[in-house]
Amino acid sequence: MDVLTFGESMVVFSPNNNGPIRHVHTFTKSLGGAESNVATAIAKLNHSVGWFSKVSDDEFGRFVINAIKAEGVDTSRVVVDKNRNTGILFKERYQRSNPNVYYYRKDSAASSLSPEDLDEGYIKQTKILHLTGITPALSESCRKTVYRAIEIAKENNILVSFDPNIRLKLWPVEEAKKVLVDIACRADIVMPGLDEAEILLGLTDKDEVADYFLSKEAKIVAIKLGAEGCYIKDRKEGVKVHGYNVSDLIQDTAGAGDGFAAGFLAGYLEKLPLNEIGQYANGVGAMATLVQGDMEGYPYFDQLMEFIGKKQGIER
Amino acid sequence: MDVLTFGESMVVFSPNNNGPIRHVHTFTKSLGGAESNVATAIAKLNHSVGWFSKVSDDEFGRFVINAIKAEGVDTSRVVVDKNRNTGILFKERYQRSNPNVYYYRKDSAASSLSPEDLDEGYIKQTKILHLTGITPALSESCRKTVYRAIEIAKENNILVSFDPNIRLKLWPVEEAKKVLVDIACRADIVMPGLDEAEILLGLTDKDEVADYFLSKEAKIVAIKLGAEGCYIKDRKEGVKVHGYNVSDLIQDTAGAGDGFAAGFLAGYLEKLPLNEIGQYANGVGAMATLVQGDMEGYPYFDQLMEFIGKKQGIER
Amino acid sequence: MDVLTFGESMVVFSPNNNGPIRHVHTFTKSLGGAESNVATAIAKLNHSVGWFSKVSDDEFGRFVINAIKAEGVDTSRVVVDKNRNTGILFKERYQRSNPNVYYYRKDSAASSLSPEDLDEGYIKQTKILHLTGITPALSESCRKTVYRAIEIAKENNILVSFDPNIRLKLWPVEEAKKVLVDIACRADIVMPGLDEAEILLGLTDKDEVADYFLSKEAKIVAIKLGAEGCYIKDRKEGVKVHGYNVSDLIQDTAGAGDGFAAGFLAGYLEKLPLNEIGQYANGVGAMATLVQGDMEGYPYFDQLMEFIGKKQGIER
Amino acid sequence: MDVLTFGESMVVFSPNNNGPIRHVHTFTKSLGGAESNVATAIAKLNHSVGWFSKVSDDEFGRFVINAIKAEGVDTSRVVVDKNRNTGILFKERYQRSNPNVYYYRKDSAASSLSPEDLDEGYIKQTKILHLTGITPALSESCRKTVYRAIEIAKENNILVSFDPNIRLKLWPVEEAKKVLVDIACRADIVMPGLDEAEILLGLTDKDEVADYFLSKEAKIVAIKLGAEGCYIKDRKEGVKVHGYNVSDLIQDTAGAGDGFAAGFLAGYLEKLPLNEIGQYANGVGAMATLVQGDMEGYPYFDQLMEFIGKKQGIER
Amino acid sequence: MDVLTFGESMVVFSPNNNGPIRHVHTFTKSLGGAESNVATAIAKLNHSVGWFSKVSDDEFGRFVINAIKAEGVDTSRVVVDKNRNTGILFKERYQRSNPNVYYYRKDSAASSLSPEDLDEGYIKQTKILHLTGITPALSESCRKTVYRAIEIAKENNILVSFDPNIRLKLWPVEEAKKVLVDIACRADIVMPGLDEAEILLGLTDKDEVADYFLSKEAKIVAIKLGAEGCYIKDRKEGVKVHGYNVSDLIQDTAGAGDGFAAGFLAGYLEKLPLNEIGQYANGVGAMATLVQGDMEGYPYFDQLMEFIGKKQGIER
Amino acid sequence: MDVLTFGESMVVFSPNNNGPIRHVHTFTKSLGGAESNVATAIAKLNHSVGWFSKVSDDEFGRFVINAIKAEGVDTSRVVVDKNRNTGILFKERYQRSNPNVYYYRKDSAASSLSPEDLDEGYIKQTKILHLTGITPALSESCRKTVYRAIEIAKENNILVSFDPNIRLKLWPVEEAKKVLVDIACRADIVMPGLDEAEILLGLTDKDEVADYFLSKEAKIVAIKLGAEGCYIKDRKEGVKVHGYNVSDLIQDTAGAGDGFAAGFLAGYLEKLPLNEIGQYANGVGAMATLVQGDMEGYPYFDQLMEFIGKKQGIER
Repeated sequence: MDVLTFGESMVVFSPNNNGPIRHVHTFTKSLGGAESNVATAIAKLNHSVGWFSKVSDDEFGRFVINAIKAEGVDTSRVVVDKNRNTGILFKERYQRSNPNVYYYRKDSAASSLSPEDLDEGYIKQTKILHLTGITPALSESCRKTVYRAIEIAKENNILVSFDPNIRLKLWPVEEAKKVLVDIACRADIVMPGLDEAEILLGLTDKDEVADYFLSKEAKIVAIKLGAEGCYIKDRKEGVKVHGYNVSDLIQDTAGAGDGFAAGFLAGYLEKLPLNEIGQYANGVGAMATLVQGDMEGYPYFDQLMEFIGKKQGIER
Repeated sequence: MDVLTFGESMVVFSPNNNGPIRHVHTFTKSLGGAESNVATAIAKLNHSVGWFSKVSDDEFGRFVINAIKAEGVDTSRVVVDKNRNTGILFKERYQRSNPNVYYYRKDSAASSLSPEDLDEGYIKQTKILHLTGITPALSESCRKTVYRAIEIAKENNILVSFDPNIRLKLWPVEEAKKVLVDIACRADIVMPGLDEAEILLGLTDKDEVADYFLSKEAKIVAIKLGAEGCYIKDRKEGVKVHGYNVSDLIQDTAGAGDGFAAGFLAGYLEKLPLNEIGQYANGVGAMATLVQGDMEGYPYFDQLMEFIGKKQGIER
Repeated sequence: MDVLTFGESMVVFSPNNNGPIRHVHTFTKSLGGAESNVATAIAKLNHSVGWFSKVSDDEFGRFVINAIKAEGVDTSRVVVDKNRNTGILFKERYQRSNPNVYYYRKDSAASSLSPEDLDEGYIKQTKILHLTGITPALSESCRKTVYRAIEIAKENNILVSFDPNIRLKLWPVEEAKKVLVDIACRADIVMPGLDEAEILLGLTDKDEVADYFLSKEAKIVAIKLGAEGCYIKDRKEGVKVHGYNVSDLIQDTAGAGDGFAAGFLAGYLEKLPLNEIGQYANGVGAMATLVQGDMEGYPYFDQLMEFIGKKQGIER
Repeated sequence: MDVLTFGESMVVFSPNNNGPIRHVHTFTKSLGGAESNVATAIAKLNHSVGWFSKVSDDEFGRFVINAIKAEGVDTSRVVVDKNRNTGILFKERYQRSNPNVYYYRKDSAASSLSPEDLDEGYIKQTKILHLTGITPALSESCRKTVYRAIEIAKENNILVSFDPNIRLKLWPVEEAKKVLVDIACRADIVMPGLDEAEILLGLTDKDEVADYFLSKEAKIVAIKLGAEGCYIKDRKEGVKVHGYNVSDLIQDTAGAGDGFAAGFLAGYLEKLPLNEIGQYANGVGAMATLVQGDMEGYPYFDQLMEFIGKKQGIER
Repeated sequence: MDVLTFGESMVVFSPNNNGPIRHVHTFTKSLGGAESNVATAIAKLNHSVGWFSKVSDDEFGRFVINAIKAEGVDTSRVVVDKNRNTGILFKERYQRSNPNVYYYRKDSAASSLSPEDLDEGYIKQTKILHLTGITPALSESCRKTVYRAIEIAKENNILVSFDPNIRLKLWPVEEAKKVLVDIACRADIVMPGLDEAEILLGLTDKDEVADYFLSKEAKIVAIKLGAEGCYIKDRKEGVKVHGYNVSDLIQDTAGAGDGFAAGFLAGYLEKLPLNEIGQYANGVGAMATLVQGDMEGYPYFDQLMEFIGKKQGIER
Repeated sequence: MDVLTFGESMVVFSPNNNGPIRHVHTFTKSLGGAESNVATAIAKLNHSVGWFSKVSDDEFGRFVINAIKAEGVDTSRVVVDKNRNTGILFKERYQRSNPNVYYYRKDSAASSLSPEDLDEGYIKQTKILHLTGITPALSESCRKTVYRAIEIAKENNILVSFDPNIRLKLWPVEEAKKVLVDIACRADIVMPGLDEAEILLGLTDKDEVADYFLSKEAKIVAIKLGAEGCYIKDRKEGVKVHGYNVSDLIQDTAGAGDGFAAGFLAGYLEKLPLNEIGQYANGVGAMATLVQGDMEGYPYFDQLMEFIGKKQGIER
């Protein structure tokens, strides 16, 4: 397996109309979750990928598993919890701005993930273990699970990839900073946004951010710069890769960061030069925004190539 | 005010198609809650009525308040909780059977209701305080709130009305029995189903059930007999009132018991003879089943009169 | 009560697709009406407000009452007419332009409002009586009702607020001019658009317009300047208040003028300085346009403060 | 042309859910109107047919014309009224019962039809002029139009067909009786329901009813007996024709009577024996009830033959 | 792998309203296909199962693969055809009767399946190869593929299961008879309906039908008797297994026969006694009819056990 | 008849959401087809027009006929094919770009049109015969039908109008070029896009393109220049006519070219000066883009006049 990831996926209910959801009558069901977003995007790029979590023993749990399995992700290690709900969320949309979100995820099945739910033999088979900063924010046992998974990876020479995904709704900033910096410093691949880096490290210069993590365990750091693209630095070089200009076409920015991570990992697994890795990452991230829904917009490999081919823009 | 009631109301999401909800794409929002059902049904029958609860400080909380206020219920005492969600539920429908229900109500705003949320001056203004057995099942503080409300009512010569509404999903049967029998024995008006009476008291004879409560504090007992109607007994007489035969037309039985309670209280407030009170109760209960949705089918006074007039059936 | 208003509200049917409605298959029901728009917007800003009208004795009449009551407006004085329909309208939408409207309001219940429908005791309890120029255009009896209401207000030292709301579909321009100027000259608060002022008075200079009404009975005049904001003048000073730039985000301009009036009256009741009154008015008006629907976009007080806080712009 | 008919057609809005329409959010547009129902059903049975009315000069008017033209009916004589609306109606559905109807047709374009709108040359080209008792109930000018049309038909040896279609919502029973009996007595073909005949003539025996009209100008009388079928009598014989038993399959009885008339006229034009005419009439009427909507269920000729062939039942 | 099957799956478009689809405005997408129905139903009963076919290189092809994969079926051998469409079908529904079907499958990707598309190594891994009589009707190359697959199975001691699934729309009855009898005579497990057996063999006695196939290569024969259940016979005994009475609850009979086959194969794999195999088969078949859609109603193992437990009925 | 045209019309299924249609659940039915687009647009401009094709003997065939007939086009010569399907297509929409299209039209009824389907007497009655380059691409028999129709036109002094409508999905470019240039050289009216002219003739100068066809049989040539408008040249003069700037309002460009052709032919039939013909053509083309759907946006004559009047722009 090329990539393994785990974390909470939820059933998403999107309003069929804009405006305050008190006035919205019907909602459409879909799937959301940072790690499963990454997993499905990687699967579409033809890399083998597994995802697991804990879900309820009901139709919502089955919906989550099946929707992810449908995209070609291995879900064989998902744990079913007979006593807890699958988390859900409602979106409330206004024109062009980010949607409000109503979470019903407290004490969800996924937030009870614990180190015992980890299948060490399964983890050993992967090349990269991808983690996000959402999981450690969900519960104490989730945090321990993340740390235990890193431990297993380290013991088995598996690369750890980390996207901080700071969610200040889920925990206080001080606690988030402490934990996320600690995890990021153990990761081989770190992918913060520049704004996230500032929160975590107090640094605003992209080279300083990259160098900070490279001085720890990171082999490579990718800093997301929004519409401007990204800055990728390893121990040999730093490359700024221009983003694709889709500002007029954006439908929904949800899932863009996860698409970036997926594109990055796909390119990294293919041992591409940094600028091409950045194109993959920027491309998947940009394409994610063109379709409403968290994961519906991720491209197949051919679609990514066509998109990238049309709209190049690289500079060192 | 004629009637005051309180308890959890939730946002209901009904599937736009039958079958397992994994395969359902869209859901329609409506309102549910035993006590608010009773309140809106009473308001339509032209009695003044108040309802309160605790709701979230967001669109779901506002939806609950406004949907109940829209029907003419006083909602001025609803408490807004800035830290908790409003409970929600999803229905899963199969042909003609009762729907499955997926609850997201654990630790909801309403389940944090506590005696401090009671406005004693407000309670004093009502003639009847209506309670259900759902509220004491939600949490320890909810249970205390119910007991404190009964205390206030008793101190002020306000009648206490009680519908056991046994929900074994919410608490173990032994605990439910103990609490619900205890509350029922303090109530002036008791309205169990015959099946509920059997669970609570181990009695299957309707006169024995009625006499049990009449030997406590009850002034009147109404035993629901499903499609057969009801049996009403006070300290003077017992009357069996035939139900209305709507079996071919039933869309959704949700809300029928609450409609029964509303019809009963309306008739009782109007000091009607027992058989007419029973007709009101049976009529509102039957009409509730003719429309999909928990509270959409309750009749206005004229509609109830027309329905009852057409389809009489009383026997002592 | 802070504000009382009356006038026709209608059931609105909006097409679920753009284009000629011959080709539209489904329509969604909502609520419309200038005065009830103002009332619901004021209620959300935490001022007590009443609205009344005449509606049909059927589900459309009940929908109108309940939808307005739901928002916290007192509807206790609405008159039910057993012989007339509630007015309805259909919208036909093209991209970004104002929708076409198909009215079915001729001889509606509301157009039969007459001075006898006025509850003098009820009117006496309000601080401000808000009127629009739509009501006198509906029928002779409606016009008389407006004049009689002004009379009652004047006799009781209640402020009269007036928004001309010129609707040339409803009456000939000459008749409209005569009546509307006459009413405006009796009002304490006058809120015309600059384009309306030109039709009514032939004046295009905002100071001349304001001075005209201030020389009559007006204590304060607010002239709406569209995207540019507004000009407010009382007998001490004149203030130009910049509008909020939302042009890229506009979904539906319907209800913007009514939101302006609501924001103005809320600010006026709070005795704010003119520039802050203007911010309230501009803010509610701008926010109304961000959501499709006539009244769905009006903000709660906190939402208005957040919107205004972000996007200030005042100049004298 | 085989048949010509005229009368009001309306835009129908059907609720997408059952129950009180206050709680219904979306409505679907379709077409209704007794005479256009007859016309489209006849066209599907391969007879040439024309229909006219007066409609608004807007999308609703165009929808009415085009939906009827689509089915192959000649609409070249429809008059467009620049000053009036096309009538509309809303349905409110409960399980299995007839829907409630909310009309917005007062002072509609069609109700202003007048003798001047009749094209005498056009009427002369038809074999049968089909009229219903709805048109004379709409307005004085509509009534005059019906009488003038009969006059033209009589002068030109065109058969007059008449379906009483009593609508007591539209006029008082005494007035209806007087006008409808008068018209029926001038018609060559009379098609009352047995219940209608009782209202009109006070007769309950089908032979007495038929003989009454046959003693006037009628050449043939068809009495609708609901699920039991019909009784057809001309000056030579009387035939009872059994209905088709579709009671378990009924979706919507609207349009059944109009389908009966269409089937009857088609069979009559084909000079079939009475029992076969009755099968056509009963068949189209029964098939109309199998599909929701007023005119969507009418069969094509082959479909009618298949339906009739399967389920015969004739007796003299 | 327990079961392997192959054959055409299509995208199904179901009308959102009953009646002639000319008058239907919207359609909902789902999945159909006899063999994939069997496969998904088996997967839900916790047996490993694979399905393959040929699909288009577009979203419809991906939809088919992913929807089947989602249910836990191995789809790794599906072939993608860059030059052909995935077959689709539209349903047209009338009340309670079987829907009309409009096929667009001529020259579809699946109908170009050929022996070269068979992966012999993959087939060798299964215990049972399940085939239906639809595939040989699609094209000459499909027929050859079926025969080649049987050959491979026979060479490797894999059981061949066969459901005739006669579709006289796809080929002439004489040709169908010849081919299907020939295939059935090679199968180890034969599952015809009694009506199909009559077409194929001219036999109407269930024992004669079973004995015919048992005298060929069949080890076991299951004859479907509709609502009456089934008759199962192997070389030792014959058992009639009563069906479950769901006639009042039926939503859609599509997929019932495929559910029967799935239940049968699951029970057979678990080496249950014949009457229990029959209960599985009857149970899955009955449950399929309770939900609209071809495969949405198949039960999970626990759901099947609950359904069977409630409603037993076995007799020898 | 002013214009006669023929060619394939299809049932169009448009996704109710943007994005990959694997994730789209519901689709809405409408009508598409270049020649019927032209026909309905001409009918709305008050010119008599006929269209014919071959359709299936089912509801899809009837939908196509009736939808076109509804708009006032003569469809009396449409041929019904009992053995073939009506072509259909699905759209897949992304933000603002042209939709992807999935065709199911291979071997459709229309593609079997042959010279025998032509009614010579019918063709003789028209002034203009309008053809597109799609029909000859559908099949050999369609190509022969086009050539035979031209022959009949030429023999009867009927003008031949031709819009190349190059569809490289339907045939190879070399074959397309050969046939389309050949047809264009026989036409009296030629309406290529400038990009099409380059493919066909290798010419990029509008005068050279026009002169090429004018040197053959063309009396007038209209070259479409997209948003810039068009260039029209006859043997006397050449006129550039500015387009209407609707770029911000475009919903769907499908049908714009057909609208151009319709506007052109209407203006030409009215013998307007070239610049006014160009305004008609540009106007109808621009208005088509303002509404989603192929033919829903075409204007009625008054609407076109209003649109043109507002936004003039002509230059020689």
